Amino acid sequence: MRHPAFSVTIKFGVKLTNEELLREFEPIFYPKSIAVVGISQNIFKVGSLWLKALIDAGFRGSIYPIHPRGGEFLGLKVYNSFKEVPEIVDYVIVSIPREAVPELLDDCAHKVKAVHFFTAGFGEAGDATGRKLEEELISKARHGGFRIVGPNCIGVYSPEVRVPYGPSGRIGEVGSVGFISQSGGIGEKLFELGLARGIKYSKGISFGNGIDLDSPDYMEYMATDPRVSVIGAYLEGAKNGHRLFTTMKDAARLKPLVVWKAGRTDVGAAAAASHTGSLASSAAIWSAVIRQSGAIEVQDVEELTDTLLIFQQLGRLEVKGNGIAVVGGLADGGGGISVSASDACAELGLNIPPLSSETRRKLTNILGRVGSILRNPVDLSQSGSNRSMIKEATGLVFADSSIDLVIVQIDAGILLKYLPWELVESIFTVFIEMRAEQQKPIVIVSPPGAFEAQRIEMEQQLARASIPVFPTMKRAAKAIVNLSRYSRFRNRG
Amino acid sequence: MRHPAFSVTIKFGVKLTNEELLREFEPIFYPKSIAVVGISQNIFKVGSLWLKALIDAGFRGSIYPIHPRGGEFLGLKVYNSFKEVPEIVDYVIVSIPREAVPELLDDCAHKVKAVHFFTAGFGEAGDATGRKLEEELISKARHGGFRIVGPNCIGVYSPEVRVPYGPSGRIGEVGSVGFISQSGGIGEKLFELGLARGIKYSKGISFGNGIDLDSPDYMEYMATDPRVSVIGAYLEGAKNGHRLFTTMKDAARLKPLVVWKAGRTDVGAAAAASHTGSLASSAAIWSAVIRQSGAIEVQDVEELTDTLLIFQQLGRLEVKGNGIAVVGGLADGGGGISVSASDACAELGLNIPPLSSETRRKLTNILGRVGSILRNPVDLSQSGSNRSMIKEATGLVFADSSIDLVIVQIDAGILLKYLPWELVESIFTVFIEMRAEQQKPIVIVSPPGAFEAQRIEMEQQLARASIPVFPTMKRAAKAIVNLSRYSRFRNRG
Repeated sequence: MRHPAFSVTIKFGVKLTNEELLREFEPIFYPKSIAVVGISQNIFKVGSLWLKALIDAGFRGSIYPIHPRGGEFLGLKVYNSFKEVPEIVDYVIVSIPREAVPELLDDCAHKVKAVHFFTAGFGEAGDATGRKLEEELISKARHGGFRIVGPNCIGVYSPEVRVPYGPSGRIGEVGSVGFISQSGGIGEKLFELGLARGIKYSKGISFGNGIDLDSPDYMEYMATDPRVSVIGAYLEGAKNGHRLFTTMKDAARLKPLVVWKAGRTDVGAAAAASHTGSLASSAAIWSAVIRQSGAIEVQDVEELTDTLLIFQQLGRLEVKGNGIAVVGGLADGGGGISVSASDACAELGLNIPPLSSETRRKLTNILGRVGSILRNPVDLSQSGSNRSMIKEATGLVFADSSIDLVIVQIDAGILLKYLPWELVESIFTVFIEMRAEQQKPIVIVSPPGAFEAQRIEMEQQLARASIPVFPTMKRAAKAIVNLSRYSRFRNRG
Repeated sequence: MRHPAFSVTIKFGVKLTNEELLREFEPIFYPKSIAVVGISQNIFKVGSLWLKALIDAGFRGSIYPIHPRGGEFLGLKVYNSFKEVPEIVDYVIVSIPREAVPELLDDCAHKVKAVHFFTAGFGEAGDATGRKLEEELISKARHGGFRIVGPNCIGVYSPEVRVPYGPSGRIGEVGSVGFISQSGGIGEKLFELGLARGIKYSKGISFGNGIDLDSPDYMEYMATDPRVSVIGAYLEGAKNGHRLFTTMKDAARLKPLVVWKAGRTDVGAAAAASHTGSLASSAAIWSAVIRQSGAIEVQDVEELTDTLLIFQQLGRLEVKGNGIAVVGGLADGGGGISVSASDACAELGLNIPPLSSETRRKLTNILGRVGSILRNPVDLSQSGSNRSMIKEATGLVFADSSIDLVIVQIDAGILLKYLPWELVESIFTVFIEMRAEQQKPIVIVSPPGAFEAQRIEMEQQLARASIPVFPTMKRAAKAIVNLSRYSRFRNRG
């Protein structure tokens, strides 16, 4: 894979090599020590919760609680100030009132490598004090030799070294997806949907106002970091549009970059201004810029996670052409599903070619003629939910030369209305076997319904087998379109 | 309410009054007796399952199993033929091979009122035998004095008299929603999503090939039936487009009629032809016809259920204007949600007016300035998940004169990452109280995540309090658009 040095990787006016870039971000994403400022003896204060979260998560480095009163808290020695801490601290988590920030930063000078501010009330607040404080932050960071994450953000998520996302100790599995979010709340949702849907992160960042390190910086880092295979970004605006564009362009040449630009409408842009102080320009310009850069534009948190999921699960499989087969009706009554699935796929421009007459003849031999739709979509209603019949028929669909990817609709709720869980499990595990046996990718649609506990158990088994699962046919189709567009972009080179 | 007699309510060439129409469908939707044909001693045969389902559901009338061998089955006397049955049977459920159907119908003549065929293999099979059999069915029904439901369908769902939908005994709560589905599987999904989301049906029908009673007949019936307040229809095509159009027009004047026409694309239309033998003409024509009729056009099963749900839950509340407020951030980090919520609403043309300066001043008094977005959307992050603060702030939003409907985003997954269930419950029940106290409607967005058991419990509590709940902001916004369009259509008269 080509791996160009970024044209814009500059630290205080000095261009960095890839190695220097990775080293620059090491204290932020792989800290060996973390200090927490803003703790109190009250465990319900957010600083205390943050400290507890690091302990609960099992953070792999040293933890230094900082408070003028000193003493002990949650079993750890509390330091009066950074001067007392016996080493240079990699990462500092700050949640104190904005007025107290300048004094803290004097204490941090030449003693820490990066400071993350959960604290809000800077540029986004829209008052003179906020703007003045923001300038002071930048100046003190430059002079004190440290970088700033935020302010007004949740900061880093790094499951490998067990840095949790936000003041709660839950950590997900380590994977290769990276996220960059201007909003802390959207980052929370990405983290949570990762747990729910099997998206495994290498790292994530919420950067809020981004007054020092900004979206293009994190994008460069994640594009350069070999542990990240796909990047998802939530943006509300950009301080330097040109730099963001060139960074997206460079990043998209290296790995899939999925961008959700919110604040597309006037109302959304107004909300973005009060949220992270971003100026959001017109939707059409943003769309054009994202598409021109080679990044994949998505419209909401659902499409963002759907697209990250399909890249994670299928990114290494080659989708050779654009022929899609849709298989449904594992319980009776797949006809209507076939009709509406066809619409959902065709409306997004996916190609649903008829199966060859040879394949259809073989399918008829297995399923019989009456009540079956065997053209494509393929309605397996006549299989009577028979495991081996389903496997044989789906195998024929995979083998058809005009098919490059197979979508299977498994409606757990309809199956469970008629069949016991054990039988339903024996049916959906067919596709786990086929994922391992087939060269062509498989995508599952699993619509929510009245048997959610079992459906979620099914989804998690499928996810663990590297099968991407979507709640609706339309969302599956959109994710496939995003995947195949990027394949074409990469192949054009 | 105006209640015109339908121009097209004709039985074998004779025009019916509303009362005659209701009486005509009484044996189908409110049968006093049901016969089941196609049972065997094998309980796993579909006919046997159907019989068992009627027993399990507690069907309120007499049940007559029919089989030439007679005897007893599942504790019921089995009748050799219809001649032996001591009364006229209202509704017959048939699942036998298509070849055996003509003889059965001779037996039914003048002895039954309606015959439902689960049996497939007629017009939709595309062979000469299928087409010939279909003609024979019609002719025997005319001469034998009974109506046909189907063939190739699941038939009736009537929770009031405890007729289950399909061969499984599960019955939902009785309500006022009616569904009409050309596909049995889509009907299954509507039934199941009803259980899951709190949509309560008065009745439903899957009519398959509809060779005798067809979509316009069921539509007339449900439009006339005072127990139905909103109708949802899944259609793949129509035999008589003009009659369907005039029926939709008459029905939409009486109550909301929500129509999902599938087979919109070429591939979808091809699938529809093999499914129910329907000729689906171009999407643009269908859209124009549905909209002109005053019906509400939807695109998939999600939008169909979303729209039925909002009419059921809010149909009686008047939405006076088109000003929408969005409230989010009940846990920390509502800023990004506000930005993207604004986009989702604005892109669908909903009006998100700024709150009055008076309302914003009062909100600032409660929530403080820093970190809060109080223009609209309103970000309650600064409430610290405090119940009374949330209630007071939301009350101010309701009271603002430019607001006609309030959307609240409750992200159970993010709340539960930080708070115990009891606290989360104390928060969302605020909105159950407000539903009862406020004149303006409330809509909740509850995104899925990693705490589904608790989230579903929350959704069900909200649904029981007549609050419509949607999984995404976009789907909520679309349902609101559908609701308000129909209000405008009704007000125009």
